[in-house]
Amino acid sequence: MSQIPTTHPRYISLMLRERLVGGFRHGIVVPQGLIAHGRGEMFDYLLGERTTKEARAASKAAAALLLKAERPVISVNGNVAALCPEDVVRLSILTKARIEIGLFHRTDERVSKIEKLLREHGATEVLGFLPDAELPGLDHMRALCSKEGIYSADVVIIPLEDGDRAEALAKMGKKTVAIDLNPMSRTARNATVTIVDEVTRAVPELVLNVQDMKDNPEAARLALEKYDRDANLKKVSALMAKNLRGFLTPK
Amino acid sequence: MSQIPTTHPRYISLMLRERLVGGFRHGIVVPQGLIAHGRGEMFDYLLGERTTKEARAASKAAAALLLKAERPVISVNGNVAALCPEDVVRLSILTKARIEIGLFHRTDERVSKIEKLLREHGATEVLGFLPDAELPGLDHMRALCSKEGIYSADVVIIPLEDGDRAEALAKMGKKTVAIDLNPMSRTARNATVTIVDEVTRAVPELVLNVQDMKDNPEAARLALEKYDRDANLKKVSALMAKNLRGFLTPK
Repeated sequence: MSQIPTTHPRYISLMLRERLVGGFRHGIVVPQGLIAHGRGEMFDYLLGERTTKEARAASKAAAALLLKAERPVISVNGNVAALCPEDVVRLSILTKARIEIGLFHRTDERVSKIEKLLREHGATEVLGFLPDAELPGLDHMRALCSKEGIYSADVVIIPLEDGDRAEALAKMGKKTVAIDLNPMSRTARNATVTIVDEVTRAVPELVLNVQDMKDNPEAARLALEKYDRDANLKKVSALMAKNLRGFLTPK
Repeated sequence: MSQIPTTHPRYISLMLRERLVGGFRHGIVVPQGLIAHGRGEMFDYLLGERTTKEARAASKAAAALLLKAERPVISVNGNVAALCPEDVVRLSILTKARIEIGLFHRTDERVSKIEKLLREHGATEVLGFLPDAELPGLDHMRALCSKEGIYSADVVIIPLEDGDRAEALAKMGKKTVAIDLNPMSRTARNATVTIVDEVTRAVPELVLNVQDMKDNPEAARLALEKYDRDANLKKVSALMAKNLRGFLTPK
């Protein structure tokens, strides 16, 4: 299965899938994570497997939010760790954001494996192994977080986050940046900024935008001012609907 | 995770997911099968998680095709076996169709586990453990099939089938009935009849239609005559696109 020819029309998608299955075999990804990835694949297919204009606009707004943040945190789960550990570490270094592991299906073993993986990719500080706080309104295992991490963060990046957790963060008054391929998900609809894009494309794009805007506060201000989450999600959804229709129309 | 309350709005979908994860833990489902299921979930969500008018029409045409068949075969893979073994066996008894296990990621161990599962659900004959023929045009492992099963069948039911295998069967001149949630897939577009529906709804519906038409050859003839695959797929796709748009429209 890792012998996928580079000429295969769906090469990148198949390689990401293999990366995830690899993460699964190493105990980083859970079976439910594989199913969730499949759902995402489908949305990405409808997106045309590319970063849209809307995703670029959202990414700029997200970068602006990050640049204003005082205590930014990147929440990392098994799928994110398996798919793009380097990019997550790069983003955290660039924005001085802490990395915290937050798992929907939490076990200490899985947290420590993910921590090890992130450290191998250059992370110096990884929170989450010893949670000492809880997000209000969630059942205990899913509420666990770190006091100096997510709990006291002002901006939280939540790639591929569960809807309940995303809602809980919003209710705490935190600003959140969701990276989610489903424009209809609760996560997408509850975040301050939602980037509808595949995570391995979205994180590098976010890194680029942070670099671009670092010394250009006016561009950052404008990007955030122009961004309208619901209008953005609506456009993405319309694009997916159009593509879905188009796939069946004879060329 | 198996403590999902029956009141949960997505109860059935979550139970199917658990069934698949169970099949996975028993070595019947492969990781790639979990991802594929996730893709399907998404399409089913766009379908409204219900059997559409178009799926009913396709199911009637499929039943008619089965009733005319001289050597029908039902091809079963890991996901199908994990999701609805009883229904598959019921359909095979009713239509005198043979059951053949056909796996994209084939190992003898997995074939024998699936065979055991199907026998536990009442199957008396299960082909596929000792393949003695190959479908032309596929690489060896994916080409394997049974001479007295799929190889010499005139009608093959292919629930959740891979696109390459579906194409190979079509090229051999066989009539095929695909059960596939993706109206744009190669499998959906290459089958004689394509039922766009979730497999645990589609197989019982097919059983009902076979029972209904068994003594009504005129109804069967009409159902097949009226069925137009591409028009049917187009309607389903338009419905999904409409739902996708609708999800984001304020109610």
